[in-house]
Amino acid sequence: MSKKRALKLGAIIHGVGGSSSGWRHPDIPADASVNIGFYKQQALKAEEGKFDFLFIADGLYITEKSIPHFLNRFEPITILSALGAVTSNIGLVGTLSTSYSEPFTVARQFSSIDHISGGRAGWNVVTSPLEGSALNFGGKPHPEHSERYRIAEEYLEVAKGLWDSWEDDAFVRDKESGVFFDPEKLHRLNHQGEFFSVQGPLNIARSKQGQPVVFQAGSSESGRNLAAKTADAVFTGPESIEDAKEFYRDVKRRIADNGRNPEHTLIFPGIGPIIGRTQEEAEEKYRQIADLVTIEKALDHLGRFFEHHDFSQYELDAPFPDLGDFGSNSFRSTTDRIKRRAKEQGLTLREVALQAATPRNAFIGTPEFVADKVQEWFEEEAADGFIIASATPRGLDDFVELVVPILQERGLYRTEYEADTLRGNLGIPVPENRYTAARKQAGVTVN
Amino acid sequence: MSKKRALKLGAIIHGVGGSSSGWRHPDIPADASVNIGFYKQQALKAEEGKFDFLFIADGLYITEKSIPHFLNRFEPITILSALGAVTSNIGLVGTLSTSYSEPFTVARQFSSIDHISGGRAGWNVVTSPLEGSALNFGGKPHPEHSERYRIAEEYLEVAKGLWDSWEDDAFVRDKESGVFFDPEKLHRLNHQGEFFSVQGPLNIARSKQGQPVVFQAGSSESGRNLAAKTADAVFTGPESIEDAKEFYRDVKRRIADNGRNPEHTLIFPGIGPIIGRTQEEAEEKYRQIADLVTIEKALDHLGRFFEHHDFSQYELDAPFPDLGDFGSNSFRSTTDRIKRRAKEQGLTLREVALQAATPRNAFIGTPEFVADKVQEWFEEEAADGFIIASATPRGLDDFVELVVPILQERGLYRTEYEADTLRGNLGIPVPENRYTAARKQAGVTVN
Ligand SMILES: Cc1cc2nc3c(=O)[nH]c(=O)nc-3n(C[C@H](O)[C@H](O)[C@H](O)COP(=O)(O)O)c2cc1C
Ligand SMILES: Cc1cc2nc3c(=O)[nH]c(=O)nc-3n(C[C@H](O)[C@H](O)[C@H](O)COP(=O)(O)O)c2cc1C
Repeated sequence: MSKKRALKLGAIIHGVGGSSSGWRHPDIPADASVNIGFYKQQALKAEEGKFDFLFIADGLYITEKSIPHFLNRFEPITILSALGAVTSNIGLVGTLSTSYSEPFTVARQFSSIDHISGGRAGWNVVTSPLEGSALNFGGKPHPEHSERYRIAEEYLEVAKGLWDSWEDDAFVRDKESGVFFDPEKLHRLNHQGEFFSVQGPLNIARSKQGQPVVFQAGSSESGRNLAAKTADAVFTGPESIEDAKEFYRDVKRRIADNGRNPEHTLIFPGIGPIIGRTQEEAEEKYRQIADLVTIEKALDHLGRFFEHHDFSQYELDAPFPDLGDFGSNSFRSTTDRIKRRAKEQGLTLREVALQAATPRNAFIGTPEFVADKVQEWFEEEAADGFIIASATPRGLDDFVELVVPILQERGLYRTEYEADTLRGNLGIPVPENRYTAARKQAGVTVN
Repeated sequence: MSKKRALKLGAIIHGVGGSSSGWRHPDIPADASVNIGFYKQQALKAEEGKFDFLFIADGLYITEKSIPHFLNRFEPITILSALGAVTSNIGLVGTLSTSYSEPFTVARQFSSIDHISGGRAGWNVVTSPLEGSALNFGGKPHPEHSERYRIAEEYLEVAKGLWDSWEDDAFVRDKESGVFFDPEKLHRLNHQGEFFSVQGPLNIARSKQGQPVVFQAGSSESGRNLAAKTADAVFTGPESIEDAKEFYRDVKRRIADNGRNPEHTLIFPGIGPIIGRTQEEAEEKYRQIADLVTIEKALDHLGRFFEHHDFSQYELDAPFPDLGDFGSNSFRSTTDRIKRRAKEQGLTLREVALQAATPRNAFIGTPEFVADKVQEWFEEEAADGFIIASATPRGLDDFVELVVPILQERGLYRTEYEADTLRGNLGIPVPENRYTAARKQAGVTVN
C-alpha cells in the first residue's frame, strides 16, 4: 500500500451492555442506558485514549425478551448530538436504519450533527434485522433481506446527493452587498428512483469534512456489496482472526472491483477485550461475567437473532436443532454462522446459547497480551482498526489506561489527534462536491 | 383562577433571523444558523434570564427565495440535544412536523431529549405549511389543510400512547435477583387508526416530567381545536393586544369545552422587542433593521406564505391584489389575516410586503416601556407568557439584561428557577401514566 497504514480505534458506548445479564455486574450503573453522566464519562474516556470515534448501536423493536439495554436507551441522533457538544475531537458514529426512515430527514440530521461537532459525524447504515420493526412503522410487511439492501443502496445515493446540495463556497454572506449565497452553487437532486422520490435541495450546507462518514454493518453477501459500493468504513463481528482475514480480503477486493480505493474504506471488527494483571485474572473476569447469565436468558438472547424464536421448546443437551432457512431474513450473516458452526463442531443447544450470550474472544489477557493481539490482527490485515465493545464500562477504562499506552509506545497508535474531523483522523479523503467536480471536468473555471 | 398566574418566557434562537435581510445587521454573525457557539451563547443568555425555555423553529422545503436562515440551519432534534448537554435548567422546545415523520421515531427522539436533559424537552407540533415539502418526502401530494390537522391529532394520540409504554416504576433493576423490569408495567399501544398503525412499546422510559411538553403552533380554526384537545402550550403570532385577547379567550374556552383545565395550557404570543435607552433610540434601531430590506426581498418573504407566490408580477403601489382562496392550504391563519387587513385598511402591495418583512410590534421602546407592555398583556389575559423572537441577538441580551430585572422587581417574574423540569417551571402537571391511572381506577392496589 502507498501510505503507511495506521491503526484506528472506536468505542461502543453501550449503556447496560450488549448481553442479557451484563447489567448485573457491579461496575455497571443499572440505569446506564439512559444515564447522560455515564455516556459523557465513557465518551471523555475514549477521547482521553485518542479514539477515532465513539459508536452508538440501535434497534427499532423490543419485546419482553429483549436484553435490558435494548428496552430503554437513548435514541442515536439525540445522544450523538449531546455528546458532540461536550467533546472536541472524537468522532460521533451512530446507527440508523434505512428501512424505516426518510432520507431527507436523516441526511439532514447527520449533517446537522456534523456542523454541531465541527466535522465529526458518522452514520452506521443498517437495514433493521427484526421483522417486528414493521409493526412500529405502519404495519406493512418487513421488506425481505435483499430488498432491504436495495432500499439501502438507493437511500445512500439520495443522502449523498442531498449532502452535495450546496457547493463549498456557495455561502457568500456579504453584508455590504446583501448577497447571502450564490444561486449557481445551489443544486436540486431531483431523485426519482424505485423506492424514493426526493427533490432537494437539503436545507443545510456541507460540513468541514464534506460529508458524514458512512459506516456499514451487515456481513452477508448483500451487506458486503453495499459496503463495497458506498461505505467509508465497515463494522463486522468476526469470531476468529481467520474469519476476520477472509472478510477483510473479500471486502477489500469487492471495493477494488467497484473502482474504489480499498485504502479509503476501513474495516473494523468489534472486539470485547477483558484485561487483567495476569492471564488468570482476565479469565476470572470473563467467568464472572459469564456466570451472571442464566440458561433461560441465554436462550432468549439467541432467540432474538432468529426473530425472537422460542428455543426453550428444544432439548438443551441435544445437538443444535435443524432450523432450515429460518433466521435468514433477519440477522442473516449471524444466523448463518451460528448454524454452520454448530454443525461443524457438533455443538448442543446449550453450548450455542451460552456462547452467543457471552462470546469469548481472542482479546482476554494482560495488557501486553491484548496489545499483541491488536498488533497481530492489524499487521496481518484482519483489521484496519477495532471497535471496542467492552462487557463492562471498566473494560473501556482499562483499555484506554493500560493497552493504548503500549500501542503508543510501539508506534502503532497516535499520541495526539492528527485532525479535528473524523475523516481527518481516519485518514480518508473529503469527497469532492459532485457539482464542483463536474464543473471542473467541464473545464469551467472555478474560483 | 385558583392559583396566582405567573408569567412565563421563552426565547427563539433563530440563527440569522426570521426575516429576509436581518443577517446584514452588524450584530448578527452571518453564519449564525449553523454556528454552535452562537446557539450556546444565546441559550446560556436565556438561562441567565431564568427563561422557561428556548425554542427552535423549523421548515422542510427551501427555494432560492427562502430567507437566509431557512437555507442552512441546524435540524431541531440535533440542536436541542446539543443544547441540552450544555444547559441545566432551561426547557428545550423544538418544532417537528406531523405531516412528514414517523410517530415512533419522533416520540422516541423527544423522549430521549427529555432523558438527556433531565426532563426539559418540549415539542412544537406543526403540520408543515408549504406544499413543496411533499417533494422532499416521496412526492405524493401535500395533504390538504384540514387533513393535515386530522393527521396531527391522530399522531399525537400515538405519541402520547407510546410515551406511556412503561409505567414509572417499571424498571426494578435488582442486580441480586436479576430482575430488570416488571413485565406487568410494560404496555403495547396496538394503535390502528386512519393514518397510523403502531404497535409499541416504545424503547425508552418516561422521563422525570412524565412526557415532553406539547406545544402547538397554527392559529386557524383547526389549529385552535388541535391545541384545545392536546396541547400544553400554544405558540401564536397576534398583531395587537386585541388580537391576542380574542385568541386567548377563544382558545381557553375551547380547552374548557374539551373538559380540560384551561390553566394547564399556556398561551404564548411571539414578540420581537426592540429596546433603546430612549423611545427614539428604540425607533432608530427598528428603522436600521427595516432599512436593510429591499422591496424585492420583501416580496419574496411575503410570497413564501402563499406557497412561494411571485408577487413581483403585480403593481407595487396598487391595492393588494385579490387572491381569492389562494394561500389557505398553506399558512392559512397568516394568509387570511394578511388579506383581511389589506382590505380593511386599504393597503398597497408595497405596504403589505414591507410590513410582512419587518413586522412592527408593540414592544419597541425603553426597558420600562417594554416591561409595561409585557405586564399589560399578561394582566389583561392576552398572554400567559411570551416567546421572545428578537430581530438581532443583542435583542435577547437586552431583554435579559434590561427588561427581566424590571419584571423581577415588580414581582412578576421568577428570580430563581422553581424546578429543573420544563413542566415544573411552567407550573403544569406531570400527566399520570394512563395504565397506572387505569389500574388505580380499577381499584387494584398499586405498590
Ligand atoms: C457488526 C454488526 C453490527 C450491527 N449493528 C446493528 C445495529 O446497531 N442495529 C441494527 O439494527 N442492526 C445492526 N446490525 C444488523 C445489520 O444491519 C443487518 O440488518 C443484519 O446483520 C442482517 O444483515 P446481514 O445478513 O448482511 O448481516 C449489525 C450487524 C453487524 C454484522
Ligand atoms: C406562531 C406560529 C409559529 C409557527 N412555527 C412553525 C414552524 O416553526 N415550522 C413550521 O413548519 N410551521 C410553523 N407554523 C405553521 C403552522 O404549523 C401551520 O402549518 C400553519 O400556520 C397553517 O396552519 P394554521 O392555518 O392553523 O395557522 C407556525 C405557525 C404559527 C402561527
